[in-house]
Amino acid sequence: MEYTIFGESHGPAIGVTLTGVPAGLELDMDAMEFELARRATGKNKLSTARKEADQVEILSGLFEGKTTGTPLTLVIRNTDQHSKDYSQLKVLPRPSHGDYSGSVRYNSCNDYRGGGHFSGRLTAPLVAAGAIAKQLLAQQGIFVGAHIASVAGIHDAIPDTTLDQRELFTQVAQKEFPTIDDEAGEKMQKAILAAREDGDSVGGTIRCMVCGLKAGTGAPDLDENVEGVFARHLFAVPAVKGVEFGAGFALADMRGSQANDPFYMDGDTVRTRTNHAGGINGGITNGMPVVFTVAIRPTPSIAREQDTVDLTIGQNAKLSIHGRHDPCIVHRAVPVIEAAAALACVQLLSI
Amino acid sequence: MEYTIFGESHGPAIGVTLTGVPAGLELDMDAMEFELARRATGKNKLSTARKEADQVEILSGLFEGKTTGTPLTLVIRNTDQHSKDYSQLKVLPRPSHGDYSGSVRYNSCNDYRGGGHFSGRLTAPLVAAGAIAKQLLAQQGIFVGAHIASVAGIHDAIPDTTLDQRELFTQVAQKEFPTIDDEAGEKMQKAILAAREDGDSVGGTIRCMVCGLKAGTGAPDLDENVEGVFARHLFAVPAVKGVEFGAGFALADMRGSQANDPFYMDGDTVRTRTNHAGGINGGITNGMPVVFTVAIRPTPSIAREQDTVDLTIGQNAKLSIHGRHDPCIVHRAVPVIEAAAALACVQLLSI
Amino acid sequence: MEYTIFGESHGPAIGVTLTGVPAGLELDMDAMEFELARRATGKNKLSTARKEADQVEILSGLFEGKTTGTPLTLVIRNTDQHSKDYSQLKVLPRPSHGDYSGSVRYNSCNDYRGGGHFSGRLTAPLVAAGAIAKQLLAQQGIFVGAHIASVAGIHDAIPDTTLDQRELFTQVAQKEFPTIDDEAGEKMQKAILAAREDGDSVGGTIRCMVCGLKAGTGAPDLDENVEGVFARHLFAVPAVKGVEFGAGFALADMRGSQANDPFYMDGDTVRTRTNHAGGINGGITNGMPVVFTVAIRPTPSIAREQDTVDLTIGQNAKLSIHGRHDPCIVHRAVPVIEAAAALACVQLLSI
Amino acid sequence: MEYTIFGESHGPAIGVTLTGVPAGLELDMDAMEFELARRATGKNKLSTARKEADQVEILSGLFEGKTTGTPLTLVIRNTDQHSKDYSQLKVLPRPSHGDYSGSVRYNSCNDYRGGGHFSGRLTAPLVAAGAIAKQLLAQQGIFVGAHIASVAGIHDAIPDTTLDQRELFTQVAQKEFPTIDDEAGEKMQKAILAAREDGDSVGGTIRCMVCGLKAGTGAPDLDENVEGVFARHLFAVPAVKGVEFGAGFALADMRGSQANDPFYMDGDTVRTRTNHAGGINGGITNGMPVVFTVAIRPTPSIAREQDTVDLTIGQNAKLSIHGRHDPCIVHRAVPVIEAAAALACVQLLSI
Repeated sequence: MEYTIFGESHGPAIGVTLTGVPAGLELDMDAMEFELARRATGKNKLSTARKEADQVEILSGLFEGKTTGTPLTLVIRNTDQHSKDYSQLKVLPRPSHGDYSGSVRYNSCNDYRGGGHFSGRLTAPLVAAGAIAKQLLAQQGIFVGAHIASVAGIHDAIPDTTLDQRELFTQVAQKEFPTIDDEAGEKMQKAILAAREDGDSVGGTIRCMVCGLKAGTGAPDLDENVEGVFARHLFAVPAVKGVEFGAGFALADMRGSQANDPFYMDGDTVRTRTNHAGGINGGITNGMPVVFTVAIRPTPSIAREQDTVDLTIGQNAKLSIHGRHDPCIVHRAVPVIEAAAALACVQLLSI
Repeated sequence: MEYTIFGESHGPAIGVTLTGVPAGLELDMDAMEFELARRATGKNKLSTARKEADQVEILSGLFEGKTTGTPLTLVIRNTDQHSKDYSQLKVLPRPSHGDYSGSVRYNSCNDYRGGGHFSGRLTAPLVAAGAIAKQLLAQQGIFVGAHIASVAGIHDAIPDTTLDQRELFTQVAQKEFPTIDDEAGEKMQKAILAAREDGDSVGGTIRCMVCGLKAGTGAPDLDENVEGVFARHLFAVPAVKGVEFGAGFALADMRGSQANDPFYMDGDTVRTRTNHAGGINGGITNGMPVVFTVAIRPTPSIAREQDTVDLTIGQNAKLSIHGRHDPCIVHRAVPVIEAAAALACVQLLSI
Repeated sequence: MEYTIFGESHGPAIGVTLTGVPAGLELDMDAMEFELARRATGKNKLSTARKEADQVEILSGLFEGKTTGTPLTLVIRNTDQHSKDYSQLKVLPRPSHGDYSGSVRYNSCNDYRGGGHFSGRLTAPLVAAGAIAKQLLAQQGIFVGAHIASVAGIHDAIPDTTLDQRELFTQVAQKEFPTIDDEAGEKMQKAILAAREDGDSVGGTIRCMVCGLKAGTGAPDLDENVEGVFARHLFAVPAVKGVEFGAGFALADMRGSQANDPFYMDGDTVRTRTNHAGGINGGITNGMPVVFTVAIRPTPSIAREQDTVDLTIGQNAKLSIHGRHDPCIVHRAVPVIEAAAALACVQLLSI
Repeated sequence: MEYTIFGESHGPAIGVTLTGVPAGLELDMDAMEFELARRATGKNKLSTARKEADQVEILSGLFEGKTTGTPLTLVIRNTDQHSKDYSQLKVLPRPSHGDYSGSVRYNSCNDYRGGGHFSGRLTAPLVAAGAIAKQLLAQQGIFVGAHIASVAGIHDAIPDTTLDQRELFTQVAQKEFPTIDDEAGEKMQKAILAAREDGDSVGGTIRCMVCGLKAGTGAPDLDENVEGVFARHLFAVPAVKGVEFGAGFALADMRGSQANDPFYMDGDTVRTRTNHAGGINGGITNGMPVVFTVAIRPTPSIAREQDTVDLTIGQNAKLSIHGRHDPCIVHRAVPVIEAAAALACVQLLSI
């Protein structure tokens, strides 16, 4: 299964074309809508007021409710496009956004309105594609779940990553603010609101677990190693600036005797006592849950005045971004990371 | 340019097949040997005693000293294979090695001797391929350099990542222990020796910079975004468990106003005052140096007795690994990370 | 530039998603409509009465009339779907159609109505994508043209394939029945009508020329050799059962002294006196026009009663196909072959 | 399974790197040698006197006689390189060879000695890779066989392509001149010798059948349709200038009622009475044998003086090719076409 996400924030539509979807899958549209709702905006004061209907239309690849096996194209019309003037973005690129790099890359022909193809809005079709991937994985007993590991330096509880945590993450996914520890979640939300009041934004980390992936998936080689396959899908999610597996960067400070995950027999099953390797040895799954954490940078759109340049005259300039912007996207990114992980799994398993 | 690395630690040879190498490149074999020597073992007490000649033979794709443009295959014969009995590895998998996951993946048909295709020895052809990539990049004014950012929690000096640091990294590459700050390097080496005395090992981090990459390389989409392309090459290097760009995971704890890299005009050039984004906005280079850090786990082969399982009888067992093993591979991994980064660059630029 | 064609004949829409379209192309929608009109039905008695508006909507990748460089999705809504019962196709597969093989491939989940994803209707988005490819090629001085080489054994005039024939093919493309020799075209049309009266159909061949492709494009290797790249695009066109380059199968009966194309200097340019190789030596263009011919099988949908099987009961059965069907698709396939060739060229040139 | 063929006719070695070979295949080296012997030269007066040992060495991916599942590299050293001066080929390109197009493509850096990477010698590693593919296919009951369908206009007997012909083709493969009808074979050989006496060469056609491929393999889409997958592998074989499936170009002159293959039940199995479609409907196998024919152009290297150009001075020139050259390669190409077909099958089946 391969996918191509298309669309611009203020163009006619956004969507995704999937090839290689197995035939005969009874698409669970409720599950897809649930995932889209998890990522949707406008629910509370933590997010922007833009109301996105995210009405999915499937143009092809579906017949009598089942996938046909031929390419599936799914579109979401853009309905909430403000007619306001976005031309400032063409002149004054927003720091740490794709406005400048994109304008160089696309010879100033990119659709700059609302970030165009760089917009976080493009994660909606990713989530929709991920919902299909999750359904395929569920048929093989594989589950993907995630939680906010931290926001603004405030950390959630850490799940035991040697266990299958699908029950825990199923509960977390029901929450408006998906942490394991609600108290930590409250503190995070306060930090987000505090940042908003300061005309600022905050970032965080998301921990994701894939449970049920059998030992022996992947290969050490380029394009097949498990870490690499996950990473290429995860870094395609806007705002992700780091990916680590298992204990990740903390491994760098450990000794081998601490870092190594000792094997033991659990009945007939080979398991490890710890899971510092995140379920992956030599680029191949070892049967333990796959665990990884991603770093989400703070939203670059902030109300405070910032230094930038005027590209038309080539001089330094000041920029004030108006309108409402998310002071934090970490909570909305949780289902997006799950979607990217689910699509990575599907690729690894050659579904 | 695409590459396939082949070989097993104790098979007849290891090597790499490259396709898409541009025709007419006068291969700098001295530069290739220099890179191979940087990664070679046996130089000092920090590394294993195994002597690897790493004699490169080019079987195809080279004519009168220049690349022909047709596939280039490069082999290194394995000459230092001990005849000792490796069959223990088939029975008692080493914790956090690919022995167990690989045996499941390849139906117990993998060459387990010395780690087989999972061996760190396979990074020699990677370094050789990287030397070719570096030469191609040099023609476009692009330089790739790296240093040991930390070992065992001891940190090297941090270079100014807003500047072109090719001079600094050229000096660092000459050192036997490639840190910027030699004093920090001394401390790291002591920590490595201390670990060895304890029958243990240590890990670390490597920081890499790519200087001279123009703004506008990459794309936000899967398979084209700069972070993703680097990550898929980097995670194919054994022992890499985390990759972060710019400030990476530290961004998660910053506010947007700190994290954002303000633009300014430097003459005619758009630059950023800080480089927390690691030279990448929206998956596309912004003209600043590309900067990333990787986490290298401690060598899993340690002298201490470890818990494992006996795969033949399905019971818990103890494992003692004999022979000499690197108590740290971080310093040897520096040219390997550079090679992977250079190959990623070549792919990004569609050279 | 890569493309994925999606859709089913009687689903909501058909279309194509293109990635890698260069930014800044001012899309010539008139040219696209002209190409679509060339392939459209309902024009005369040679074709079916189904009226297809073929209204193209571009959902993404276009901004202010120019391509943005990000994925471009183009859809054509299906408006002329008859509500008639197509379920016979599920039970009684039409000989030499994809009904049976498709039902095995897709576990009976394929959309069988009107041939579904196998329908010739899917060539409309191919032609639209080809129009974009043609525009990109025109910027490099490359032209793709084709004519009906034969229908029902009646042959058109043969152009001199050593010359740039863009003028000739531009004229041919204006014709409702695109032959070079109108008299031959008249005879072909009579043969088509005669077949229709017999409740039968006819096939033919199409010759295509690519003019302006410089010497040195392609490579001898798999996936890069010019013949292979054209062939993979051409065989994806329904009804194509053979592809030959230059003199093709006739070369098999020639001697080397006849078949070889002698080189000569035409001013500063190396040219060949004949073009039996179709402009390709060793999988690489030699600067002469690329010439190939494809075999188009007769339309499998015929009015005559045919033998088939009843898949539900596993017994022999008779099939009568009702409704109006093209007694010949060769003339409508001419712009389709040009489109496939243009897309192949774009791939070869890594545009 | 993917493969990259590397090497030059007069370089150190030729070979192939295969990735994705399933683990645990006990490599049948005798079968590989048998295939290589079928294509080898020097056997009789129909072929050149160059003696190629074709000693295969496997550098990686094999352990204790079984494939490991990791990349397999196989090399054949070039031992019979004459020290003679090949520099004429750089100056005076041979008509219809890749000398000129290759020199443009590779900026005059290609290894021109003996045709370099364009040499027919590169089909040896292709045959070796094909032998591995055949072994994998045999495990699934799939057989690939071929015969000389014609040489110099003289035709072999035509097998019944509705039947599984593995017995017939197994016999044909034992023959030094692989025709079904030995009398026709005698005539062909006379035609070859006659051409040689005239300092000329002849071409021919090869018919190939794949038996045992189940219905439902492939897809209508680009890159997955059965015809396209075979064609891309076949056109990578030097000298192939046409590929047709089933009745191929003859279909162009048929009516639908003749061309259509009527279905019938053979016990529980759906079969077709004729096999004009070559076992493929809508890009997908229908369970009948897959049948195709390729056109092999006459060897371009002929003794007769030919017109060419002198690339150094840009003037017309005469060329006489010395040395011994095959007056026909069709008989030697039979195992090469089988190898390409076997590799195509393996790709289609995602082995």
